[in-house]
Amino acid sequence: SFRVKCYRSNLDEPKPFPPLPQHPPVAELPQRVYADYSVYTRMGVLTLTPKPPQFDAKASGAFSVSREGYMLLQFAPSISTEEPIYDWNQKQVFSLSVTEMGTLISLGAMDSWEFFRKTANAKSGIEVRKVLKVEPLLDITGHSFSLSVYKKPVDKEEIEERLYLPVTRADLAVLRSIFNYIMPYLLGWNAFASTIKPEVYNQVNRTNRL
Amino acid sequence: SFRVKCYRSNLDEPKPFPPLPQHPPVAELPQRVYADYSVYTRMGVLTLTPKPPQFDAKASGAFSVSREGYMLLQFAPSISTEEPIYDWNQKQVFSLSVTEMGTLISLGAMDSWEFFRKTANAKSGIEVRKVLKVEPLLDITGHSFSLSVYKKPVDKEEIEERLYLPVTRADLAVLRSIFNYIMPYLLGWNAFASTIKPEVYNQVNRTNRL
Amino acid sequence: SFRVKCYRSNLDEPKPFPPLPQHPPVAELPQRVYADYSVYTRMGVLTLTPKPPQFDAKASGAFSVSREGYMLLQFAPSISTEEPIYDWNQKQVFSLSVTEMGTLISLGAMDSWEFFRKTANAKSGIEVRKVLKVEPLLDITGHSFSLSVYKKPVDKEEIEERLYLPVTRADLAVLRSIFNYIMPYLLGWNAFASTIKPEVYNQVNRTNRL
Amino acid sequence: SFRVKCYRSNLDEPKPFPPLPQHPPVAELPQRVYADYSVYTRMGVLTLTPKPPQFDAKASGAFSVSREGYMLLQFAPSISTEEPIYDWNQKQVFSLSVTEMGTLISLGAMDSWEFFRKTANAKSGIEVRKVLKVEPLLDITGHSFSLSVYKKPVDKEEIEERLYLPVTRADLAVLRSIFNYIMPYLLGWNAFASTIKPEVYNQVNRTNRL
Repeated sequence: SFRVKCYRSNLDEPKPFPPLPQHPPVAELPQRVYADYSVYTRMGVLTLTPKPPQFDAKASGAFSVSREGYMLLQFAPSISTEEPIYDWNQKQVFSLSVTEMGTLISLGAMDSWEFFRKTANAKSGIEVRKVLKVEPLLDITGHSFSLSVYKKPVDKEEIEERLYLPVTRADLAVLRSIFNYIMPYLLGWNAFASTIKPEVYNQVNRTNRL
Repeated sequence: SFRVKCYRSNLDEPKPFPPLPQHPPVAELPQRVYADYSVYTRMGVLTLTPKPPQFDAKASGAFSVSREGYMLLQFAPSISTEEPIYDWNQKQVFSLSVTEMGTLISLGAMDSWEFFRKTANAKSGIEVRKVLKVEPLLDITGHSFSLSVYKKPVDKEEIEERLYLPVTRADLAVLRSIFNYIMPYLLGWNAFASTIKPEVYNQVNRTNRL
Repeated sequence: SFRVKCYRSNLDEPKPFPPLPQHPPVAELPQRVYADYSVYTRMGVLTLTPKPPQFDAKASGAFSVSREGYMLLQFAPSISTEEPIYDWNQKQVFSLSVTEMGTLISLGAMDSWEFFRKTANAKSGIEVRKVLKVEPLLDITGHSFSLSVYKKPVDKEEIEERLYLPVTRADLAVLRSIFNYIMPYLLGWNAFASTIKPEVYNQVNRTNRL
Repeated sequence: SFRVKCYRSNLDEPKPFPPLPQHPPVAELPQRVYADYSVYTRMGVLTLTPKPPQFDAKASGAFSVSREGYMLLQFAPSISTEEPIYDWNQKQVFSLSVTEMGTLISLGAMDSWEFFRKTANAKSGIEVRKVLKVEPLLDITGHSFSLSVYKKPVDKEEIEERLYLPVTRADLAVLRSIFNYIMPYLLGWNAFASTIKPEVYNQVNRTNRL
């Protein structure tokens, strides 16, 4: 983001980006990067996308975290038993809070857990319940993720959609690693941590400023 | 802190990005960010806030850590059995050193630990003892954090205030993750680590400077 | 890459620090750094080199990961039983995906795993199969890494080359640590994480830009 | 280090550093920071100090790690049984390689390990052997670190100096955490990792530069 503001003095110039002709005159606005991780199984795919926290500026100029980040889980079923073709039109989503990520990380090889959601759409009146069940696979090679979505339109029967994915121990290890990595960021602790510098927290600054 | 300096040379220019009217042009002083993590339970809330280390400048211009950072624990009881309403007027605090954070991290599912503090207020003569007991919950779904604060005014009976929080295994997993993350920062190791760059530690610089 | 631009505006000034005569003024192009980790054993050496992900620029100026990074494993046998002399002419390579790194990380002390590869060279018609077997050592002091490479020229017998390395538990602990460290980078999550800053994700920016 | 070079344009000004009058005109030379971690016991103190790797500049301008960093262990005995007074004149040192740090990290609660060193001083002819033994404490509350240093002057008897420290499980957890943190830095992997940016590794740059 630094470079941006220095560039500002060039505001009258056209800044075509991209394409980047040679040496990219980097992002005008703070750079945005999208990263995720997909677990591909014969039954479907699970894509995990971290979502950033929000910060609030205080009157003092300091910032504090106003909303924790979270992990968006997107499930899509496979529509072929032969080869993995995933139907994103049937996708279902489920968001995990940082604490729920902690639940997943601390799940032992033989442990199970259920995550619940319940929402109601004020306009349509449709009630939606979601249950994400994480259970050990029978052959203990990992855990199954099964997501059930129940929709109940007003005066109608409840409809259930279900997605089932067998996730290997290896993929769970990757999840554990990237969850461990990203959790402090989703809590904004990295923003605090990045202020820990000798030139900020030393005797001289302390006497002057704290 | 750097950006500031760029801004300054451009001060006469219009700065259309971003229009932050409320708070001062960011970081005239080095940016401050407040981050914490709260464990909400039916009995009360526990808020953890990391506190930075302090550095000293040496005559050589190098810095060293003069005081380790720590983790501030703030406990507040719930004043309703129906819904979680927390009374921060009854809050109690307890600070964990990095080594004590290590104790918490390494606590097995069936392990217990007690942390002690004892201080005396020179003026009022009130002696304060604190005991933070961390024990496995009976149903093994996590650990309880119970904080007892004993205050003994001169020539009076000791008064005890007690706070009890059941903390789930999931929350302990989050604590383990963010403690692991923040401990090197509280020790200032990140400040050392951030100097490990090819342009600093290479053959050329070594012969010239070490 | 930023420093460059500052340097340029000052190009006419003397730049007494540091005097790096041999190599070009650092990072005209973005800096490249090569890092690896070698496991030395009496039977041979295993060198692990992380390979970066690739990013794609979107029309919006945002970036997304277009190809995950991976870990290149290079095996070379020892050609002496007396002292460790490694013959890199006989080297064999094997690349681990992030998920396969997860497999290695989550391997218990008594667990085994096999990784497979199969490729065919269109021109020469040579089929190459590779099997990397990771198994507990008999004395449980670590795991063996044995790599078998099968090459089958057209109309000829298959040739097998085999490399065997006993890797200690200590080295596996280092691998676990550096894999854990590097996996989020190979997935590009660090690039996302580095955008999590108060000045990017706050109320003011949100209303203006999201 | 960046700020420095921008400051360069002020080269004609005196740059008194330190003392830092208000807002430190940061390091003329790349900043140096010293960080360590001390384990205090009734028998003595163990101070751990990470030592950086060295990089080599290649003809291409890229850097590679030429020497791994390591962990310096300094032991000093307590000279009082009443209170902890440490005698640094009797200190002994022992350096752990990254692989040996892996050994310590992976040591189970009931495991032991011995680290060896042997050097000879060419001038004095004194042979020095060192053995660092790490063993579970009898009450399983941690591990003991005992360092034996054997010095053998030419034609004389070997002299043994011994230091013994009981290190708690909590301190071992801190060591595990900071070792895990610092190992990738000591191997220079952070320098590689810090180059993983969308603006470096993308389609455009790849076609132009790889």
